[in-house]
Amino acid sequence: MNPSTEINFEKFFQKLDSKLDQLWTKILSSSPLAKTVLSGEVTKELYGIYMLETYHYTSHNARNQALVGIRNDIESLPYIKFCLEHAAEEVGHERMALHDIRSIGFEGLDGALPRPLMETEALIAYLYWISFTGNPLQRLGYSYWAESCYKYINPLIQSIQKTLQLEPSQLTFFIAHSDIDADHFEHVKTIIQRSCKSEADLDAIEYVLTTSLKLTARMLDAVYEEYQEVQLGRGRRYDFLCKKA
Amino acid sequence: MNPSTEINFEKFFQKLDSKLDQLWTKILSSSPLAKTVLSGEVTKELYGIYMLETYHYTSHNARNQALVGIRNDIESLPYIKFCLEHAAEEVGHERMALHDIRSIGFEGLDGALPRPLMETEALIAYLYWISFTGNPLQRLGYSYWAESCYKYINPLIQSIQKTLQLEPSQLTFFIAHSDIDADHFEHVKTIIQRSCKSEADLDAIEYVLTTSLKLTARMLDAVYEEYQEVQLGRGRRYDFLCKKA
Amino acid sequence: MNPSTEINFEKFFQKLDSKLDQLWTKILSSSPLAKTVLSGEVTKELYGIYMLETYHYTSHNARNQALVGIRNDIESLPYIKFCLEHAAEEVGHERMALHDIRSIGFEGLDGALPRPLMETEALIAYLYWISFTGNPLQRLGYSYWAESCYKYINPLIQSIQKTLQLEPSQLTFFIAHSDIDADHFEHVKTIIQRSCKSEADLDAIEYVLTTSLKLTARMLDAVYEEYQEVQLGRGRRYDFLCKKA
Amino acid sequence: MNPSTEINFEKFFQKLDSKLDQLWTKILSSSPLAKTVLSGEVTKELYGIYMLETYHYTSHNARNQALVGIRNDIESLPYIKFCLEHAAEEVGHERMALHDIRSIGFEGLDGALPRPLMETEALIAYLYWISFTGNPLQRLGYSYWAESCYKYINPLIQSIQKTLQLEPSQLTFFIAHSDIDADHFEHVKTIIQRSCKSEADLDAIEYVLTTSLKLTARMLDAVYEEYQEVQLGRGRRYDFLCKKA
Repeated sequence: MNPSTEINFEKFFQKLDSKLDQLWTKILSSSPLAKTVLSGEVTKELYGIYMLETYHYTSHNARNQALVGIRNDIESLPYIKFCLEHAAEEVGHERMALHDIRSIGFEGLDGALPRPLMETEALIAYLYWISFTGNPLQRLGYSYWAESCYKYINPLIQSIQKTLQLEPSQLTFFIAHSDIDADHFEHVKTIIQRSCKSEADLDAIEYVLTTSLKLTARMLDAVYEEYQEVQLGRGRRYDFLCKKA
Repeated sequence: MNPSTEINFEKFFQKLDSKLDQLWTKILSSSPLAKTVLSGEVTKELYGIYMLETYHYTSHNARNQALVGIRNDIESLPYIKFCLEHAAEEVGHERMALHDIRSIGFEGLDGALPRPLMETEALIAYLYWISFTGNPLQRLGYSYWAESCYKYINPLIQSIQKTLQLEPSQLTFFIAHSDIDADHFEHVKTIIQRSCKSEADLDAIEYVLTTSLKLTARMLDAVYEEYQEVQLGRGRRYDFLCKKA
Repeated sequence: MNPSTEINFEKFFQKLDSKLDQLWTKILSSSPLAKTVLSGEVTKELYGIYMLETYHYTSHNARNQALVGIRNDIESLPYIKFCLEHAAEEVGHERMALHDIRSIGFEGLDGALPRPLMETEALIAYLYWISFTGNPLQRLGYSYWAESCYKYINPLIQSIQKTLQLEPSQLTFFIAHSDIDADHFEHVKTIIQRSCKSEADLDAIEYVLTTSLKLTARMLDAVYEEYQEVQLGRGRRYDFLCKKA
Repeated sequence: MNPSTEINFEKFFQKLDSKLDQLWTKILSSSPLAKTVLSGEVTKELYGIYMLETYHYTSHNARNQALVGIRNDIESLPYIKFCLEHAAEEVGHERMALHDIRSIGFEGLDGALPRPLMETEALIAYLYWISFTGNPLQRLGYSYWAESCYKYINPLIQSIQKTLQLEPSQLTFFIAHSDIDADHFEHVKTIIQRSCKSEADLDAIEYVLTTSLKLTARMLDAVYEEYQEVQLGRGRRYDFLCKKA
């Protein structure tokens, strides 16, 4: 990019939004997990497995976000501040996921939790990877979709709530997040506008938006496969989870 | 495990070998990349893309191996020594991959290389992840299959050599590795016997053997998909690679 | 400590305060830098050298504070949150030090700054060290004295201001900090009360309070020694600094 | 440096050697520890305290050396290999220090060792610091003096051996090191010649040679001060050490 050319951020955000529309449309229409939920066939076991994997990757989000903030190759002070403040806000959110699992009757979560699924670990590992290496701004691609996903996943949440007849107090993870994320999404856009200086920055953000959402979709597929194993009595990983109170 | 029970390592290695037989059989019979190679239909482009991704993940192996050696939660001095020595031996091996790509006529590799495929980065990220966290011995599961893979991949190498009519001097990456890896494999087995003290250690090794090989298989699939894009004229990532000298 | 014994934090804070009284009394009475300042003999050169070293260690404070927050051996969520929030607040404070140096006529600071003095690097290195290893709470010992030091250093600041005839706008580093640090000091005491569970925690905090203040005192001594070299025309490190606008 | 100017390494090594002569002469003539040893007045307690601090910093040498090898800003493959190989060789050397302490009758070393002295931690912290940041070649300044120190410290070792009437088997730390370090010193010089490309590289090496030796000298002084506390019955840190078998 010619340094004298100003970046058109409105156009960039439209490009990201259009990319997200395309990726989410594919996920919602082809993921077995999403189709099961939307057709009103979700079970507590499926939801419980999903929330446990959600617990796992969420429990690393503050840490990998803060990891960006301690890199020594960032010149933008507002971006460093954003990373550390955003990380501080994410601390402990994973506990809401555990609370919600317990609230539907799965009480056997007190000891060591089962290791995350390979696909969940691959997502976690990738978020650390794009945080400690590469373009320091690229993790904003993950934040961009994570803070704006409710537009796409609200039908899933509503369907879960209706099928499993859950009170709002049993859905704290999703409800608390959707309340605060509207604000967060504006922060993400503001910091992108303030910190990005080149097409390479924009490309890195768009790339990580795509890859981190694709790896999340793979996690959803793996949750469903594991659920099928549990249904067939072959899933040993979540035995303890399936003991109801 | 009762601490007085001795671990039966012969049985453990048989279990790993049997797991590997099963995983490799599935890869060789169902991976489009493997099937294309074994049926004598490999092209320089397909091989070149594969070797470029191989370059990428190999260029991190010394580093993530050494990362295990600097952890402060390892009590076994021989294992720390093994990690650092093994890392030292891996330094620079990725350069053989670049040499081999150039030797078949793709010369356009001098500038910045294209970013690895998402699946390659997921593998790289995972190898860092299992190196800096979790059971410190678990990376031995990756070494176990990586140092013994020639039994399974030699037919692929031979087929590539025959189809593309390559000299041994154009296959330095594979030939150099298969020569030294027989020794390495014995080192891996020795250090497992010396350092593992519990079933949890064995389980962690077996788990990472499985996951890291599965993520490698996904990289192979992604290489093939990207190759198909290139065939259809849609793959922009490797444009420069496909300019022959 | 018997786990049923409650920790008496009031007594602990009194112990820390008494330790600080003792350490600061020694510093203020025996440090050549402090004595020079208090006797009204500070020069712009001495103050400039001091502020440059202050710039250096301050520029790492957000980073080493955040490093505590990404450790995976902390159970107290409020402490993790404290570390990240506190780190976020520290971002960029070092720029005030540079501003203050420029404001007294030293303009030659635009290029690469000189490497910190060995004693400054030793302090910086130590703050990273106690952040990434040992008792995760121990860095609070540094925060305890750093957030409460104005009681002791105000006479120094006033003497500098009077001797060099500085406006408040030329002392932004000290004035901005003393305004916000009263609040910070209460946060530090609150998080100590909330997170410490054992005598080992208290001991680690007291130990790092002592060591980090002693290493800071060594930095002050080194600043004065370097100033003497400059006076004798032998200090090559700060040549560029001593070119006035 | 003009890139076309070849670096004169012989001259550089002479400069380092002359710097070392000067630094060691000062240490040997003014350090209370060295003077006590050379005048035949060393005691088992003084030697024991010294060896315990030696144990502490030595136990980090493999790790901080390997840390250089995993940086991603090094272009010289031989240097990466050197770092990892050298680190592998250092693994476990600290155990010889413990062996030697036990061999003179101090048996109370089985539980948790006392925390290192502040000056020892400052040295350890500094070695990590110069390993993970700054010029990646600078740690060679530490290796340069550490691998060539026997020329200067042999009189100390001989005096300790004579005064305390020790067998060679009670001085394994020093004897094993002096045997292997002659070779190591040649490796250090070779890798400097192979990897340094600019005056900035040479300056960084010379700087760290000086600072790391000065911080070691401060550790020696702190050992002697702590010994005096023990003599006066005030040193609580090493109580357990002073219980003879």
